[in-house]
Amino acid sequence: MKNSNVIYGDGTVTSPNGFQASGVYCGLKRKNKDMALLLSDFPAIVVGLFTTNRVPAHCVVYNKERTALGSARALIINAGNANCCTGEQGRQDNLEMARQTARRLGLSADEVLVLSTGVIGEPMPMQKIRRGIDMAVDALSPHGGEEAAHAIMTTDTVAKHFSARFTISGVDCTIGVMAKGSGMIHPNLATMFGVFTTDVDIDAGLLQEAFRDAVQDSFNMMTVDGETSTNDTVLIFANGAAGNPKITDKNENYKIFAEALKMLAVEASKAIARDGEGATKLVTVTVSGAATKEDAVTAAKAIANSMLVKTAVFGKDPNWGRVVQSAGASGAQINPDAFAVEFAGVKVAENGGAVPFDRDATIKRLHSNEVRVKIDLGVGKASATVFTCDLTYDYVTINAEYHT
Amino acid sequence: MKNSNVIYGDGTVTSPNGFQASGVYCGLKRKNKDMALLLSDFPAIVVGLFTTNRVPAHCVVYNKERTALGSARALIINAGNANCCTGEQGRQDNLEMARQTARRLGLSADEVLVLSTGVIGEPMPMQKIRRGIDMAVDALSPHGGEEAAHAIMTTDTVAKHFSARFTISGVDCTIGVMAKGSGMIHPNLATMFGVFTTDVDIDAGLLQEAFRDAVQDSFNMMTVDGETSTNDTVLIFANGAAGNPKITDKNENYKIFAEALKMLAVEASKAIARDGEGATKLVTVTVSGAATKEDAVTAAKAIANSMLVKTAVFGKDPNWGRVVQSAGASGAQINPDAFAVEFAGVKVAENGGAVPFDRDATIKRLHSNEVRVKIDLGVGKASATVFTCDLTYDYVTINAEYHT
Repeated sequence: MKNSNVIYGDGTVTSPNGFQASGVYCGLKRKNKDMALLLSDFPAIVVGLFTTNRVPAHCVVYNKERTALGSARALIINAGNANCCTGEQGRQDNLEMARQTARRLGLSADEVLVLSTGVIGEPMPMQKIRRGIDMAVDALSPHGGEEAAHAIMTTDTVAKHFSARFTISGVDCTIGVMAKGSGMIHPNLATMFGVFTTDVDIDAGLLQEAFRDAVQDSFNMMTVDGETSTNDTVLIFANGAAGNPKITDKNENYKIFAEALKMLAVEASKAIARDGEGATKLVTVTVSGAATKEDAVTAAKAIANSMLVKTAVFGKDPNWGRVVQSAGASGAQINPDAFAVEFAGVKVAENGGAVPFDRDATIKRLHSNEVRVKIDLGVGKASATVFTCDLTYDYVTINAEYHT
Repeated sequence: MKNSNVIYGDGTVTSPNGFQASGVYCGLKRKNKDMALLLSDFPAIVVGLFTTNRVPAHCVVYNKERTALGSARALIINAGNANCCTGEQGRQDNLEMARQTARRLGLSADEVLVLSTGVIGEPMPMQKIRRGIDMAVDALSPHGGEEAAHAIMTTDTVAKHFSARFTISGVDCTIGVMAKGSGMIHPNLATMFGVFTTDVDIDAGLLQEAFRDAVQDSFNMMTVDGETSTNDTVLIFANGAAGNPKITDKNENYKIFAEALKMLAVEASKAIARDGEGATKLVTVTVSGAATKEDAVTAAKAIANSMLVKTAVFGKDPNWGRVVQSAGASGAQINPDAFAVEFAGVKVAENGGAVPFDRDATIKRLHSNEVRVKIDLGVGKASATVFTCDLTYDYVTINAEYHT
C-alpha cells in the first residue's frame, strides 16, 4: 500500500456520501433478492465500460448511449433474466425499466441506467419487474449498499462489496464497489458486473482516465472460463458530495484517488475469480520477462484459461510443463532455453528445464486457497498479472447439470 | 462419398504396399507398448506439418530439418517421454534415436524421422530407448501396423488406425493412417500425432498440396481443450510402391487421391476428438452464414473450445445462449437479429431469438454419442466445421489427479 492514508474495508456503494441503495425480492429468481437500485442524491458524472461481445444485451446498448451523455442519477439492476436475444420487445422492456424507475424517483429517463443478468432468449417478466422497481424505490436507504450487493448475485456464493477511505486536501473521501461474478444462473451467462460509487469531486475526463486504467489491470485481467458475456459491464458514479477541492489535473490528489480506485478494482476482480464456479482457489498468474506488454498479457491469459493448468492447480500439481506449453502456444515470444517457472513461490524450472525442488513441501503450499503461478519468458522486461481460479468437478456439475 | 470406388476401412500404416511396422514395450510407460517403428521398403517422399508452439520438442526441430530434404525411409516413435525442455542432452538423445535406428536398418541417419510424446522436462531414459529400438527393428513386419498404432497411445483409450483403398487408372492404391490423441500421459501433454502412409506414386509438390489441404480441414479443425502441444506433428510417407501411372498434375487421379486423403484425415481427427480425455461424445460444431471463411473458423473454434458449451453438451442441454455468447465473443461478425442455432438437428433459435421446440425429444437426441451443434451467423455465406468433445468429470479427474 503506497498511500498509507488509504483504508480498505468491506464497505459498500452507499459508503460514499450522497448515495442510497436497496435490494429486494420480486420473484425473478427462485429465492433470494433479485432487484437492486442505486441512487445518487446529486447529479453524478458517470463512466461505463462494456462487453465486446457482438451480441450485446439490450441494457448494454442502452447504457452505452446514456453514459455517453456523461452524467446519471440512478441504476436499476435485475438478476434472473439477461434481456438478451429478446428482440424489439426486449428493447422496449429495457426502456420501460428506466422510465418507471425515473418516474418513481422524479427523474428523467435519461438519468437512469439499467443492468440485467440471467437467462438469455427469454422475455422479461415485466409484471414482476414493475413490482420489483416499486419495492426497490420504497426500500432505498443510505445504508442499503449491502442489500444491493446481495440482490445482484446469481450463482455467486458470497456478496462482493469493498470500500476505500482516504483524505484529499484534508477532506474525507470514499469509493465503494459492488460486483458480481462468474455466476451462471439457471441456464446461462457468466456475466460480470462492477458498480463503483465515489463522493470525490473530479473532472469527468480524469475520472474516465483513472477508471479505464483501473479496469485494465483488474476486470480486464480476470477470467474464470475465458468467456466474455453479452452483458459484462463496469460503471462508476462520482457525485462530488465529499466536497473536496475538485481534482482537475494529475496532481498528488489524482494519484491518491487513482491508486485507491485501482486497488479496489483489483480487490473486486480477485473476489470474482476466487468465487468462480466450483473454484477452490484464487490463482494469480504472473508473466514476466516478456518482449512486450501485449505478449505478457497474451501469455498470462493463455495460461489462466488453460484447462490443463487449471486442473493441475486443482490437483495441487506443480506441473510446469503445462504452464510452458500454454505460454508457448499463446504466440508470445518465449526463449526455450531461458524460461523459468515458479509454483507457490517455489522455483520448479529454470534455464528452460527442470530444477530440483522439494516436491512434498510445494504440494503442501498448493493446498492454500490462493496460489501464485509465475513464468519468466526469458526474452524482455514486460510483465502482466491475470486472476483466475482452478477447474474442478463442481464447475462441471454447475454447468452441466443446470438445464435451460 | 463422391468417389464410389473408394473403400474406407480400419486398415493401418502397413496396408499400403512396401511398408513395415512394429510396436514393442521397452518400459517407458508403466505397461503397454511404448515404442513404434515404421519403415518404407523404398525411398519415400515425405511431408511434415508441425506444431506452432514456441517451445517445440527436439523431435519437432529435428523433423522440420529432415522433412525439408523431401524424402525419408523410417520413423521411430516413443511414448512416455516428450523429450522437450531437456536442453542439449535432449537434442543429442533425439539424434541418437535416429542414428541407432538408421544403423540397425542400414540407412543413413538423415533418412530416419523421430517422434516423442509424454512427460516434458525429464531426461530421456536412453538405456530403455536403445533396447526398445533394437526390439522394434527385430519386430518389423508387413502386418505390424496395428501394433504400431497401439504403441503410440498415451491416455488414448482406443488405437486409431484407418485406411482407404481405391484404383488409379486401374491400379489398386492404398492410404493408411495411425493417430494418437489428446492423451496426457502421467503428467503432461495433449500431443497429437497423425502418421500417414501411401503407396501412390505422386509428384512431391502435389503430395504436399493435397496433404496441407487435408490437414487444414481435419487436424487443424479439431480441438479437445484448445491446447497446442510442443510435439504435435502430422507426417505422410508416399513410396510409389503401388506402381500407378505417376500423378503429375491435378487430373481426375489427383482428385481421387486428395479426396480419399482428406476423408481419412477427417476420420482420424474425429476419432481423436471422440477419444478426448473423459469425453462421452464427439461434438461437431458447424458455423455457417459467416462473412468470411476466417470468421467461420474463428467462431467455430471459439464454440468448440467453450467450457460452457462443452459442459452443456455433456449435460444434454440444448443451451443455445452459450453458443451465441461464444460466437459473439469470438470477434466474428454476427447479426444479433438474424442468427439461428440447431442442436442435434433441432432448431432452437431463429432470427436472433428463441423458437418453440420439443425439449424432451431434443434432450433424447443429445444422449447420442455424436452431437451436432450448428449456428448460422446471419451475415454471409462462409462456413467451417470443427470437431471436439464434451467436458466431463472424467476430464477433471484425468488432469487433476495424475501428478507429475
